[in-house]
Amino acid sequence: MNRLLFVLLFSAFLSPALSQDGARRNFHIPDIAGFYTLKGDFHTHTVFSDGLVWPTLRILEAWQEGLDVIAVTDHIEYRPFRDDVNQDLNRSYEIALPKADQLGILLVKGAEITRSMPPGHSNALFLNDISKLDTETWSDAFTEAGKQGAFIFWNHPGWKAQQPDTTIWFPEHDKLLVDGRLHGIEVVNYKEYYPKAFAWALEKDLTILANSDIHGSIHSEYHSGPSDMRPFTLVFARERNLKGVKDALMDKRTAAYYNGNVYGRAEWLKKLFDACTGQEVNAAASGNGKRSIFLTNYSGIGFYLVPGEEARRAGLIYDIELPPYSTIGLTLKVPGQNESPASAILLEYSVTNMFTSPESCLKTSLRF
Amino acid sequence: MNRLLFVLLFSAFLSPALSQDGARRNFHIPDIAGFYTLKGDFHTHTVFSDGLVWPTLRILEAWQEGLDVIAVTDHIEYRPFRDDVNQDLNRSYEIALPKADQLGILLVKGAEITRSMPPGHSNALFLNDISKLDTETWSDAFTEAGKQGAFIFWNHPGWKAQQPDTTIWFPEHDKLLVDGRLHGIEVVNYKEYYPKAFAWALEKDLTILANSDIHGSIHSEYHSGPSDMRPFTLVFARERNLKGVKDALMDKRTAAYYNGNVYGRAEWLKKLFDACTGQEVNAAASGNGKRSIFLTNYSGIGFYLVPGEEARRAGLIYDIELPPYSTIGLTLKVPGQNESPASAILLEYSVTNMFTSPESCLKTSLRF
Amino acid sequence: MNRLLFVLLFSAFLSPALSQDGARRNFHIPDIAGFYTLKGDFHTHTVFSDGLVWPTLRILEAWQEGLDVIAVTDHIEYRPFRDDVNQDLNRSYEIALPKADQLGILLVKGAEITRSMPPGHSNALFLNDISKLDTETWSDAFTEAGKQGAFIFWNHPGWKAQQPDTTIWFPEHDKLLVDGRLHGIEVVNYKEYYPKAFAWALEKDLTILANSDIHGSIHSEYHSGPSDMRPFTLVFARERNLKGVKDALMDKRTAAYYNGNVYGRAEWLKKLFDACTGQEVNAAASGNGKRSIFLTNYSGIGFYLVPGEEARRAGLIYDIELPPYSTIGLTLKVPGQNESPASAILLEYSVTNMFTSPESCLKTSLRF
Amino acid sequence: MNRLLFVLLFSAFLSPALSQDGARRNFHIPDIAGFYTLKGDFHTHTVFSDGLVWPTLRILEAWQEGLDVIAVTDHIEYRPFRDDVNQDLNRSYEIALPKADQLGILLVKGAEITRSMPPGHSNALFLNDISKLDTETWSDAFTEAGKQGAFIFWNHPGWKAQQPDTTIWFPEHDKLLVDGRLHGIEVVNYKEYYPKAFAWALEKDLTILANSDIHGSIHSEYHSGPSDMRPFTLVFARERNLKGVKDALMDKRTAAYYNGNVYGRAEWLKKLFDACTGQEVNAAASGNGKRSIFLTNYSGIGFYLVPGEEARRAGLIYDIELPPYSTIGLTLKVPGQNESPASAILLEYSVTNMFTSPESCLKTSLRF
Repeated sequence: MNRLLFVLLFSAFLSPALSQDGARRNFHIPDIAGFYTLKGDFHTHTVFSDGLVWPTLRILEAWQEGLDVIAVTDHIEYRPFRDDVNQDLNRSYEIALPKADQLGILLVKGAEITRSMPPGHSNALFLNDISKLDTETWSDAFTEAGKQGAFIFWNHPGWKAQQPDTTIWFPEHDKLLVDGRLHGIEVVNYKEYYPKAFAWALEKDLTILANSDIHGSIHSEYHSGPSDMRPFTLVFARERNLKGVKDALMDKRTAAYYNGNVYGRAEWLKKLFDACTGQEVNAAASGNGKRSIFLTNYSGIGFYLVPGEEARRAGLIYDIELPPYSTIGLTLKVPGQNESPASAILLEYSVTNMFTSPESCLKTSLRF
Repeated sequence: MNRLLFVLLFSAFLSPALSQDGARRNFHIPDIAGFYTLKGDFHTHTVFSDGLVWPTLRILEAWQEGLDVIAVTDHIEYRPFRDDVNQDLNRSYEIALPKADQLGILLVKGAEITRSMPPGHSNALFLNDISKLDTETWSDAFTEAGKQGAFIFWNHPGWKAQQPDTTIWFPEHDKLLVDGRLHGIEVVNYKEYYPKAFAWALEKDLTILANSDIHGSIHSEYHSGPSDMRPFTLVFARERNLKGVKDALMDKRTAAYYNGNVYGRAEWLKKLFDACTGQEVNAAASGNGKRSIFLTNYSGIGFYLVPGEEARRAGLIYDIELPPYSTIGLTLKVPGQNESPASAILLEYSVTNMFTSPESCLKTSLRF
Repeated sequence: MNRLLFVLLFSAFLSPALSQDGARRNFHIPDIAGFYTLKGDFHTHTVFSDGLVWPTLRILEAWQEGLDVIAVTDHIEYRPFRDDVNQDLNRSYEIALPKADQLGILLVKGAEITRSMPPGHSNALFLNDISKLDTETWSDAFTEAGKQGAFIFWNHPGWKAQQPDTTIWFPEHDKLLVDGRLHGIEVVNYKEYYPKAFAWALEKDLTILANSDIHGSIHSEYHSGPSDMRPFTLVFARERNLKGVKDALMDKRTAAYYNGNVYGRAEWLKKLFDACTGQEVNAAASGNGKRSIFLTNYSGIGFYLVPGEEARRAGLIYDIELPPYSTIGLTLKVPGQNESPASAILLEYSVTNMFTSPESCLKTSLRF
Repeated sequence: MNRLLFVLLFSAFLSPALSQDGARRNFHIPDIAGFYTLKGDFHTHTVFSDGLVWPTLRILEAWQEGLDVIAVTDHIEYRPFRDDVNQDLNRSYEIALPKADQLGILLVKGAEITRSMPPGHSNALFLNDISKLDTETWSDAFTEAGKQGAFIFWNHPGWKAQQPDTTIWFPEHDKLLVDGRLHGIEVVNYKEYYPKAFAWALEKDLTILANSDIHGSIHSEYHSGPSDMRPFTLVFARERNLKGVKDALMDKRTAAYYNGNVYGRAEWLKKLFDACTGQEVNAAASGNGKRSIFLTNYSGIGFYLVPGEEARRAGLIYDIELPPYSTIGLTLKVPGQNESPASAILLEYSVTNMFTSPESCLKTSLRF
């Protein structure tokens, strides 16, 4: 066969004139005042270390799940497929980048410094040249990451394989913290939440992260049901670009999301809840001793509200469930206040799926 | 036991101080220029005829499914539960109204004139006193409905029990049409679509409707999967109130929705599609002989696009699927136009789930 | 119109020659040795008290959800629709019965004795004539139920509206227990689980029940997702008929199911878990220091297994998730036992969604 | 750090003592008399050609979806990742095999002969050495496949990129057929069904196949909803091993499944339908001019039954829907046969989602 014709035909049938990229699900979480709310996963693997997918598939998965930013963070020291796959440490990033650009996914260049405990596994993000982190000692790797201006966080600090009995903060972590080589910590990794890591984040002033650490395909690991998806880090960024992401991470403007729960500092969770929800007086159902409101959830996160002590004493004994993308009606009986336009009544509730510390939840008020 | 105490306790445990009304799912269909897009079901039954639910449950169901307006239309002539249930023909409306007001559902007072074919079953909406339609002859019932200013439509015109062999338009329907006693027609009823009725609607200038004719509970009849819901009528109203609904129905500003398909006049379907979707240039993936766009669907309706003849000849051989609440990326190869900012290319597609007649679909253009 | 013709037509279009009854979902829970495993809901309401559906719909709902037996238990003392609905206390049962017979649902005649606390609300099942329970005092109602041979249980004992501060067992309940007028207790009602009631059931030798207490439609209250359904009582019956059900209830052969959790006595939960699951050696993956098994779940209940202390010390640190209708593969590393056909290794796990008391879970073993 | 210690720690944290392999969903399709019903996908890609996943992930995906047998069939001629991935043509099979053995998935060694039209793309299964098929001409490749005893089928014969205007059977295909080098044909590929290919299969006596041709991850391409999964080939095998699969393929004992539809020869579809469903007399609802049955679907395939002409004339005007894993009740009115135990009535229906040719459906009878 004519070689040129062959090539033409080949290119024809492998590249249709119009190509379509999956479908990006809109998992809506509103922006908050002054900041974009970006959804990020800063811990993923590909066949270039021990992951089971090609780098471009990580981009497509992120697009499909509605994420805004991801990091591909292959292990530096652990590459079981070395006999079959190119071992250039920068390669997975290079392959993923054009696909990321095409789909508008922000791609962070990163790597996993994979060492035994202490200090355990850590991710370094915003690197220039990953190969320089392939050093003899772990401390040299951290030093090099620092030179490259990396944002560094401790991965799965409660991972049972490395911390079998209890979760320990080692002197090595203190050293890293003092040296400015430890900026954040995973409060959620894969399918696990570490309360201890959350406490450390607050105590030691670290950035809070939730990442998937995905090795297989995202959809085979999560998506057992319609609301099942990977954990992600909410990033409150001033700009929708890599600089905005890095600034937010360095500045601890994040929250962790997994399995319907949000973990973060109270100030950011409050802004988030207020952006996600809205109250409206239901005039038609108010009056005659009743005050009624509509409470709307604009976001894909469901919220659970439990009455505070005072509200409970006033008879508000039931919990409130506010599903994603929905409105509920709430009617309060106010005996003896049938007609007069009395002042508003504020009732305090706890949002029991928004954790401001391992032991406390966000407080909010319903206004009747 | 002290009687007063008993009453107090009773009232206490049957009326908690704060009550919650289900959750209204936000099935988003955007408003179109100059009109609210309301979702309505104008054909439902309760235990006051042969339905299996109390009137207030019809309101709650409508609220849960995200509808804006419903009519309770119990049979006038067929009341099998007459030995057990009050037979006042206005009663189901009276019971439903306070619940509708409380939840912000617009409630239309209506009834089903239930006669053998011809003319078959018809719904009269916006009635004042239903009992006056309980007449000897069907024509008297229509006359009375007319006196009350009703909007009248033919129910399930292709119903096999009444039209077993083929679907027939009788002289009686001509008479009703001429007399101004027939304004609309059900193109979808329960789970069935009638192409013949759709053709008549266009030919005889009737309002297009899709209604559930629900007898059991909505959720046990539909909701076999996450996207399964009752059919509904899209009403393009100038005001979000009963007057707005009636004007829209009388003015034929409607479309029928069921099972992912939309049936309606081309002018309204075009406005609807344009309000539901948006295109954006994907600059990062354009250039070098490629033009790329993002196509977003803001609505809960999924769309299917099939290339027109010309587009197909140009190599655009694949169909496009645009799921609800999602964005897709489309990249077009434009050989020989690598650099220059040439004029936009318009490609024609058919939206195959938007029917502008039984045999034709809405045309739209993608702009590259 | 000729009256006879009218009737014929009428009957024709309202009764098609072939009618279909919904679809009964097969939520599979296997029978256990010597007993049928029946799924029952013994607490439901209709429009004949304050429920919002017609009695036949309760039967259809039970059929659709795959239940085997239900009781319609309208309030005796609380009938807010009295002005619109027949007040004969036996009527809802009479209406439901033919539909139950048609669909093979076992229908228990029952009623709710609806009194303030103490003793609160109670259900009496297997009654002959409900109207005789409409007495002045609650104790007379219990006496009459006893005369009719009823199985009697305490409803929602932790209901906040009746037990606002804490959950209290009153002297009146002792009296009922001693008199043989209290046989069972709801451990789950609607969407709430009462640990206190579970403890009482074990301590005072009462039958364990989980019921929906449904007032609206089942599908609008539950079914927010594919695995969401009403609570039900598992009844281990020697016969698949009403006598079998009554004997099992009286003999305390039950367990409570809700939201993926099972609550019951250890002996029955063990039999149930063993009937639901099966282990099989995976020869192909065994050997070379590994032992591998397949663990299959034949049932619609998902199970969660957490390693016991000993297993944990042996390195089995991870939890096991065994979804409904699925098989998982488990591989154990056994260093130094590469070849020899050594004796089986038994590892103890807790089934954390099967509660044998408020504080303990079923223990089971995996055999490698 | 001590090197040995490092290794030990490393092995510890990367290999927990007990490992779990996903969860295999039981998509139940019963065996038929004398044959196992196996679910197979004979067309998949990995990173060793242009797929986006590692070979072991293909095995895990098959296990998760409940398949029994797959072939990894990387392109021989098209390997865009050649700079990064080992180019040994037998390598993807070698990597996948241990995982397949571990999970009990039957793994067929195969490859895609990737040539322009004619003859287009073809899969050769049950190969010994794929590298020998990397020949200059396509006919040499087929000859070599024949020497290795391969089962060969034509892939996506209606693929628009290769057959843009219409679907053509070329003289080259005749030649292959005569030479015994073409045994089967894909009637479904990826998400497309080819009626023309189905007609050819029947006309030219070819094995019917449905395959995914998956390049990305299975779950990101399918699984948009709970019943969405890849197409698969039903293989009716005498043995549950590779020999059984090959014999069945060679002997044309297959059917194609996709998107709720089954395509196959009438004899096999009849056996399949009979194995999937069961009828039972409903005595309680029979008599008094009625005959009632329960119709149960034991399988994960839903069925749709439409009355034949005779049944329709007898008044059986409604279609029947029989969802997966469910039972429906059907009641027939038989006027004038109230009491006598008359002979059974057989009513003919078409199973409209089981295609015995592009234009015809399986016929079945309901027995009342």
